Amino acid sequence: MKVLSADVLRRLGTEIFMAQGASKEKSEFVAETIVEASLTGHDSHGVRYFVRYSERAGEGFINVKEEPVVVKESAVSALVDGHWTFGQITAMRAMELAVEKAIENVVSAVGAYNCNHIGRVGYYTTWAARQGVVAIMFVNVGNPSVSVYGGLGRVFGTNPLSVSVPSGGENPFLLDYATSMVAAGKVSVARAKHEKIPTHWIRDKDGGVTDDPNDLTEDGWLLPFGEHKGYCLQLLMELMGAVMTGSRSGVEPRGARAPSPNGVFIIAINPDGFVGREVFERRTGKVLHEVRTSEPEPGEMIQIPGDPEWETRENRLKEGIPIPDDTWELIKELAEELAIPVPN
Amino acid sequence: MKVLSADVLRRLGTEIFMAQGASKEKSEFVAETIVEASLTGHDSHGVRYFVRYSERAGEGFINVKEEPVVVKESAVSALVDGHWTFGQITAMRAMELAVEKAIENVVSAVGAYNCNHIGRVGYYTTWAARQGVVAIMFVNVGNPSVSVYGGLGRVFGTNPLSVSVPSGGENPFLLDYATSMVAAGKVSVARAKHEKIPTHWIRDKDGGVTDDPNDLTEDGWLLPFGEHKGYCLQLLMELMGAVMTGSRSGVEPRGARAPSPNGVFIIAINPDGFVGREVFERRTGKVLHEVRTSEPEPGEMIQIPGDPEWETRENRLKEGIPIPDDTWELIKELAEELAIPVPN
Repeated sequence: MKVLSADVLRRLGTEIFMAQGASKEKSEFVAETIVEASLTGHDSHGVRYFVRYSERAGEGFINVKEEPVVVKESAVSALVDGHWTFGQITAMRAMELAVEKAIENVVSAVGAYNCNHIGRVGYYTTWAARQGVVAIMFVNVGNPSVSVYGGLGRVFGTNPLSVSVPSGGENPFLLDYATSMVAAGKVSVARAKHEKIPTHWIRDKDGGVTDDPNDLTEDGWLLPFGEHKGYCLQLLMELMGAVMTGSRSGVEPRGARAPSPNGVFIIAINPDGFVGREVFERRTGKVLHEVRTSEPEPGEMIQIPGDPEWETRENRLKEGIPIPDDTWELIKELAEELAIPVPN
Repeated sequence: MKVLSADVLRRLGTEIFMAQGASKEKSEFVAETIVEASLTGHDSHGVRYFVRYSERAGEGFINVKEEPVVVKESAVSALVDGHWTFGQITAMRAMELAVEKAIENVVSAVGAYNCNHIGRVGYYTTWAARQGVVAIMFVNVGNPSVSVYGGLGRVFGTNPLSVSVPSGGENPFLLDYATSMVAAGKVSVARAKHEKIPTHWIRDKDGGVTDDPNDLTEDGWLLPFGEHKGYCLQLLMELMGAVMTGSRSGVEPRGARAPSPNGVFIIAINPDGFVGREVFERRTGKVLHEVRTSEPEPGEMIQIPGDPEWETRENRLKEGIPIPDDTWELIKELAEELAIPVPN
């Protein structure tokens, strides 16, 4: 297992994306979002994407020189055409617009289409919460991998939802998850470790119950979380992420188009339109404190959404980011190919 | 089992609330929302509330003569003080404001506090969707009955979420549920029928696994749905419903105050700010059609959120609304007490 510091990985990522023709500013930002995913423990969205995004840039799916363009706008809303640049650039532009408009006018909504994979959704909502704004992000993934409740086969993507709420401290409340039982990356991790998985995560290609993670790549599918209640959210992500913005839906044919497009819809809310920012943050902190210190089940620990991320981040900032050998091999190979010095 | 038509029950409810001193207009509206809950199959929020709300009015918790007042307002937002009138009146005023502002300015957010029980949340979101607007309603219930994930004891209320999306037809997409495993009413139904319940619905007073619905009223509690993912939503309802609006949180002491206050936060979105209403509704209808006609698991049926409600509604409009004997006895007693003629 290779272990590298966040700084070293940020520089490496920046050089890799610059070598693909992206500007320094863009490359730095995309590398930063990826390293943040690794820091917060979301390795499925972490530095392995140095390689994947490079491939997609090479294949012409990510247009590294393009910029997102606002095609429709009002004082409280915008619709952004991502022009198939890095999804991160488009998502961040959309979130900046949403926060700016919410700070000015209490509430805002911003959609984005023609948008590549945006990475870890919590990056953007956390950024908003740190400006004192509640941010909700509905995302659809145009590449289907999840069945619907009561159905067979792949219909929708992992369609994540993220909501971040400022809570007075440095680290906000952070809801950030796929509406499938688990993200596909968790199944890959079990596969790599030759471990079994719980039987309520996936189905095999015939719809059979299975604990074998290999069944997912062999035409199996993920299940939506939380029975019909999770399924309702999965569908809602599709309607807001894809339909409201004009992005590709999982039920539409992919053709030769982008491998993993994201439709993005953001709502931002400024507490000053309601109880006021100071009262809101103080009382949110108090409610969350009550929960954190309430009585746990024997052997359990009560956590606030976001806690595991912030704890991992602190550890990895100190101890470095562990990178599995096979991932590191691919990154090293890519760096060598691009004549970028490989860090030790 | 008594069976009465929706019309008869609407008239009866109106007379009951008028006899409590409410205006004809208010009484008609509250009765209408209650009968709609019964029509759509949500008996837990149905005509039994003729009696409960009458009791609360008698005890001074519902101030039948009060009106909600807007205390803070912008072109796209409002904060409403419900003045402890019927929760239905406050919730509807808040939703009307939200829809009006969203139609005018693309997106809006409206909060409400000092608000009694608002009944079935889907009533308001469905109303908005029928005007072509997407409506999201975050609600907290100040009366705790649900544990947090990994914790023991009652911390929050059943904190429902509702989202309705116009989909081209008469009946919209409707997500409308408690963030607990089930609403408390489902446990009551099992208790009344002397049936066992699934072991993942509630815990007994010592945190023990149980299939006995009686354990809930004996100091047991409901569990949040969907493991940590449902728990995140339960908390989010609390932060938006209670904290953003200034309503009572489940972690705060009740004292002598309202038995079941609701904190209400609404977001409304007009598709004309994005892909446009016509395109949005047509494509939403298409995506939902693809889902509805996709391959079901053997013996299963794929439903769209809202389908069960609309189907029950159609049946009960034709065949009448069934009322369990004990509920009917209480309604009859109340009507007699108020010298209102009891329908046959």
